[in-house]
Amino acid sequence: MKISITELRQKVEATLKQSFSDDHARRIADYLLWADMSGIVTQGIIKMTGSEPLHKIKPQHDITVERDTKLSQLINAGAYPAPLVSQQATDTVIQKAKEHGFAIVGVHNTFSSNGAQSYYAERIARENLIGIVMARSPGSVAPFDSLDPLFGTNPIGFAFPTSNDPLVFDMATSAMTWYGLVLAKARGENIPENMAIDHEGAITIDPGQAMSGALLPFDRGYKGSGMGMVVEIMAGPLAASAYCDCVTFDKEWGSTFIAIDPNLLVDVEKFKANCSDLMAKVKASRKKPGISAIRLPGERARAAYEHAAASGMVEVDDAILKDLGYL
Amino acid sequence: MKISITELRQKVEATLKQSFSDDHARRIADYLLWADMSGIVTQGIIKMTGSEPLHKIKPQHDITVERDTKLSQLINAGAYPAPLVSQQATDTVIQKAKEHGFAIVGVHNTFSSNGAQSYYAERIARENLIGIVMARSPGSVAPFDSLDPLFGTNPIGFAFPTSNDPLVFDMATSAMTWYGLVLAKARGENIPENMAIDHEGAITIDPGQAMSGALLPFDRGYKGSGMGMVVEIMAGPLAASAYCDCVTFDKEWGSTFIAIDPNLLVDVEKFKANCSDLMAKVKASRKKPGISAIRLPGERARAAYEHAAASGMVEVDDAILKDLGYL
Repeated sequence: MKISITELRQKVEATLKQSFSDDHARRIADYLLWADMSGIVTQGIIKMTGSEPLHKIKPQHDITVERDTKLSQLINAGAYPAPLVSQQATDTVIQKAKEHGFAIVGVHNTFSSNGAQSYYAERIARENLIGIVMARSPGSVAPFDSLDPLFGTNPIGFAFPTSNDPLVFDMATSAMTWYGLVLAKARGENIPENMAIDHEGAITIDPGQAMSGALLPFDRGYKGSGMGMVVEIMAGPLAASAYCDCVTFDKEWGSTFIAIDPNLLVDVEKFKANCSDLMAKVKASRKKPGISAIRLPGERARAAYEHAAASGMVEVDDAILKDLGYL
Repeated sequence: MKISITELRQKVEATLKQSFSDDHARRIADYLLWADMSGIVTQGIIKMTGSEPLHKIKPQHDITVERDTKLSQLINAGAYPAPLVSQQATDTVIQKAKEHGFAIVGVHNTFSSNGAQSYYAERIARENLIGIVMARSPGSVAPFDSLDPLFGTNPIGFAFPTSNDPLVFDMATSAMTWYGLVLAKARGENIPENMAIDHEGAITIDPGQAMSGALLPFDRGYKGSGMGMVVEIMAGPLAASAYCDCVTFDKEWGSTFIAIDPNLLVDVEKFKANCSDLMAKVKASRKKPGISAIRLPGERARAAYEHAAASGMVEVDDAILKDLGYL
């Protein structure tokens, strides 16, 4: 159903305040509402439902900085929710890159996933910096030629400042998300063909079989597997996080935030104008038959967000609202 | 035929010295021989044949540094060969990153492509740094839902230091290389299905039709198209190079070199050990039926290189040797 954003925010913050400070509750709600308003429903307030709801997280200890240099910071999240600590990491990477031209921040020991990488990458790009954000998650994807779920679904997001809104592209390096499996299983539905294998390596459309088997890389080939490996390393060992489900550190979730000032190489205003021009050239190119308009990465999510913001209303699944006691 | 590496190097350097200094000739030969020894034959001395042979390049002016900061450098290549200037860029990015923890170097106005990104990325990783190298090339790939060849084949390479040799992964973001089209056309052969479209957007197996049409992204989908766009921006506008075949600067070729010191976040020796362990875990995982050993990215090229180096001989196509007057 459509629900007032103001009302939903009040309810979400109230729920989160059961476990977290007012400021932390507000920041987590910022992320969750953004995701639902952007139509990224699998990464929004649904995270407050299920077997490990976000607002029932019991942190182990304060969020601590384990390494800090001019250009970098390593954060131990103390098992705080990833969307909260990822926002802190985003603030830090922006501040350091604005001062020095580049920064990298790693986060380990978060509870659960930080959601959509585009949220953090776009915030970096709104500060006239190039944002690159990666996250590794528990092993669920079989590398090329392997049958074992060694890599996470490992999303990567990029955002570039332009003369208007940032150009944002993010993707999972898996053929589908883990949450897609969870949802299909809960609904008793099949998943599409060629997304996953069962434990013995046969293609399966049964989400339960896929969960005890493995997802495939997004291109079903060695390039997608290679990109998954890159994220596994950049957000795993480089962020003092786990990899290949070998839990060497605290937790399985890790993420890495990179910000690059285009001024290191070119004038940022020219860079932004050229990125806008590149977007315009793609939009103006000849379209495939049946395509009414070429859609750039991130365009659909931004349109959904702007529509929700303008109307003051956001669509949320009734089942989620009931589960949270909001209905 | 198999030819002595020592003999081939002497001949290649002699040919290159017709146009370049001894030092430049040696460095270009370093790259070309590495490619042939690694079995990457489309990126090796074949570049000295064809309509625009590497050794007949007439540079416009000296290689000049247009921007220089602690963390960065923008190089105008003066239309010198890309493999030469890319080695200079690699040296610079290594030196700056060793001093400051991070560096980025952009190169524009090179003549032709710099070849395999893995060559430069691996050199960065041998210095205990993470290497990321990207290159944009003249428009040949249609973005998702478009029929026009706006993005280059846009390769990207990553290399990570490990306890042994670096872990190297590189790929074109196109379904096949431009050179693959050139070669198929020259041989009167078809290309595989689902690699390219003709000018009207129909799938074609005719390399000539593909050359006047467009290649497809490597996954034939929006994720591959998005990755192609990322490289188009990072090695195009960010390197003061062209993009979407809108030649706003000197030339169509651009490349960007990034080096990140893992010590910014974690101890480099632990990082290297964990990368080696990650590789071992992938190698030891259960294999798909019919696969005798899981091959990691870069493994085949390194084995070919080591075999050539040990034997002192390298396989080169007779036609290339004849074309160069070496036979």
